[in-house]
Amino acid sequence: MQRIVQKFGGTSVGSISKIIKACELIEKEIKNGNQVIVVSSAMSGDTNKLVGLAENFDISKNKLEYDMIVSTGEQVSIALISMALRKIGIVARPLLGWQVPILCNNNHIEAKINNIESNNILKIIENKEVPIIAGFQGIDENNNIVTLGRGGSDTSAVAIAASVSADRCDIYTDVDGIYTCDPRIVSKAKKLNKISYEEMLEFASLGAKVLQTRSVEMAMRHNVTVQVLSSQTGQKGTFLIKEDKKMENELVSGIAYTKDEANITLINISDNPGVAAKIFIPLSKKNINVDMIVQTGSENGKNINFTYTVSRKDLKQAILVMEENKNNINFERIITNDSLAKISIIGLGMRTHTGVADKMFSALASENINIHVISTSEIKISVLINEELVKKALETLHTKFELDNN
Amino acid sequence: MQRIVQKFGGTSVGSISKIIKACELIEKEIKNGNQVIVVSSAMSGDTNKLVGLAENFDISKNKLEYDMIVSTGEQVSIALISMALRKIGIVARPLLGWQVPILCNNNHIEAKINNIESNNILKIIENKEVPIIAGFQGIDENNNIVTLGRGGSDTSAVAIAASVSADRCDIYTDVDGIYTCDPRIVSKAKKLNKISYEEMLEFASLGAKVLQTRSVEMAMRHNVTVQVLSSQTGQKGTFLIKEDKKMENELVSGIAYTKDEANITLINISDNPGVAAKIFIPLSKKNINVDMIVQTGSENGKNINFTYTVSRKDLKQAILVMEENKNNINFERIITNDSLAKISIIGLGMRTHTGVADKMFSALASENINIHVISTSEIKISVLINEELVKKALETLHTKFELDNN
Repeated sequence: MQRIVQKFGGTSVGSISKIIKACELIEKEIKNGNQVIVVSSAMSGDTNKLVGLAENFDISKNKLEYDMIVSTGEQVSIALISMALRKIGIVARPLLGWQVPILCNNNHIEAKINNIESNNILKIIENKEVPIIAGFQGIDENNNIVTLGRGGSDTSAVAIAASVSADRCDIYTDVDGIYTCDPRIVSKAKKLNKISYEEMLEFASLGAKVLQTRSVEMAMRHNVTVQVLSSQTGQKGTFLIKEDKKMENELVSGIAYTKDEANITLINISDNPGVAAKIFIPLSKKNINVDMIVQTGSENGKNINFTYTVSRKDLKQAILVMEENKNNINFERIITNDSLAKISIIGLGMRTHTGVADKMFSALASENINIHVISTSEIKISVLINEELVKKALETLHTKFELDNN
Repeated sequence: MQRIVQKFGGTSVGSISKIIKACELIEKEIKNGNQVIVVSSAMSGDTNKLVGLAENFDISKNKLEYDMIVSTGEQVSIALISMALRKIGIVARPLLGWQVPILCNNNHIEAKINNIESNNILKIIENKEVPIIAGFQGIDENNNIVTLGRGGSDTSAVAIAASVSADRCDIYTDVDGIYTCDPRIVSKAKKLNKISYEEMLEFASLGAKVLQTRSVEMAMRHNVTVQVLSSQTGQKGTFLIKEDKKMENELVSGIAYTKDEANITLINISDNPGVAAKIFIPLSKKNINVDMIVQTGSENGKNINFTYTVSRKDLKQAILVMEENKNNINFERIITNDSLAKISIIGLGMRTHTGVADKMFSALASENINIHVISTSEIKISVLINEELVKKALETLHTKFELDNN
């Protein structure tokens, strides 16, 4: 007997028929003799409708109310799941965040979980009932409803799995696992059977939308085995686990990309110690995130050029901020490019194997793909290239690092 | 300074613009120096949508889940009201049933309120905030959400008013008060400035849908002054109060009617002591409510005829029940009529004045309106007439009892 958390995303419970389908997946685990705890998102579309209603007012001034409104989505879905389970003879118990309770800080809209009263969940299991817990929501110490922000239901599921020492946390979604690369672009992409938390963190933060970074971090911190799988097929998906020896033999586990990159180059800055702060503090004040940064010598050999990337949606605002601070930063002119993409190869093997970067750069060079900026971490190398070359670059690297499906 | 509960029905908060309008009514009371506690229904339409969703399953087997789903309607409306108030500079605090808490029995779908933690409400008032409380909902002793059934939000409002010793409970709705008769039928109907609880109870139970019987009973029990008024005009409505001497001088306060009446007459029953039980117990088992009952001697002078009325929707089922129990009840045949209406005159004055019934019957006779069945209570006389004569009967009685608007 295993103890399994089954988490259903919005598309997996998006209609009554999908809820019934999800209940078959619950029934299957129970028939296999397992203990099941269900965590659910709101029915797909419901949250957007609720957000739309709340947006008649200024959300930033009404966060408590916003959380009260959007949390009703899960309140409806868990009750419907419970009803559908009863219909097939399974006694369930829907639980809202305040009923568990899932105790959070009071940071409305993006609260963090502090503690889960797992004894209440375990009592229900012992009573041979299936707890159906609302994802995405909790309460603060003043009994106010709070929500966990984007990907909050995944975080709820992993946190609940950790709190009840579940053997596994199954995240049911509309894809059947994590792929070596986006299969919509690289036809030879293959599903991974397993991936380490560290690699998944890079995948998540580099644009693979399957799991949010927060839930992966939580799984890593509490060593929760997570499986990402499809609620349509219910077939074995991709396991997120602690790294093992075998994983280090793989040079590269997968390739991620993001298309909404833009860069800004400040030409001929008078070099002085405080220049980075002069550039980045005003950007940060406007909530503009800076990603890759490169500093190079300028044409005249005395001054420097400074290049950084931002999300494409932030480019206009970033240029404005630079112009406003032109005298202070002391640059000559700005060059921008808003049709760039970032390609990243990810793999634990990079820590112990050398030559991965060389292999990447030469593969791209052989296809005449120019690299604008490079950044690296322990298990990742990212390069900025022209957007129209994404498909070519991904396919080239996918083949070169022996990821192609046979 | 007065302490006032303002209760808004579904149509009064049915859209963002209506919510903003309701907030103006709240603001007005606050500017008058009053303490305000708001109770709200769900936005009109929302509850029906939620019920529709729940009805994908068998509600009778899923009452806990049903309550969890439908209670989200008020969760949304109170948060929106709070947002709209903040926009005009009023600090509000939305409170769900479990947050107050409003403690109820565990009779899901039609729970009764046991206790309201009014200290929590009073603390918010003392803090110069306006509590916005979800009507219709509470929790049982196991922290399950329960709902109060039809008209539950009115009951919540009156119970809250009683618990905080409010000076008044204003029920905002889409009519501007209680009328002597339905103004859509009797053009000379006039708005009552006040009405006693007892009279209002008769009105409510006789088809005037403005207030549900339960909320009136609760107001009477706790002596809560209730005002029914329009959220569109905000003008003075009708006050429900304890009867006073002056009220007894009015022979008749108003005339109510219901159109969905049907009657069943069982002809030639062998008279025996247990016959009423033999008729009514099987009906009760099928949840068929019987209203007026008349027993008369039959044609042959030995046996009896038995006439009773049911809702028109229950007629078919009632006939079926009679046929199934024909041998046990021992009647000869059934006569039914499904195009009847019940007209009732209501007035505290009947208790002390004689001749009211005579006046009613002769007025109807003078217009050739035949009476099928009569039933009376201390402050009410009801008669069953043919449906097509309703308008004529109402107008005749309205004039005869001097209720016409001048």
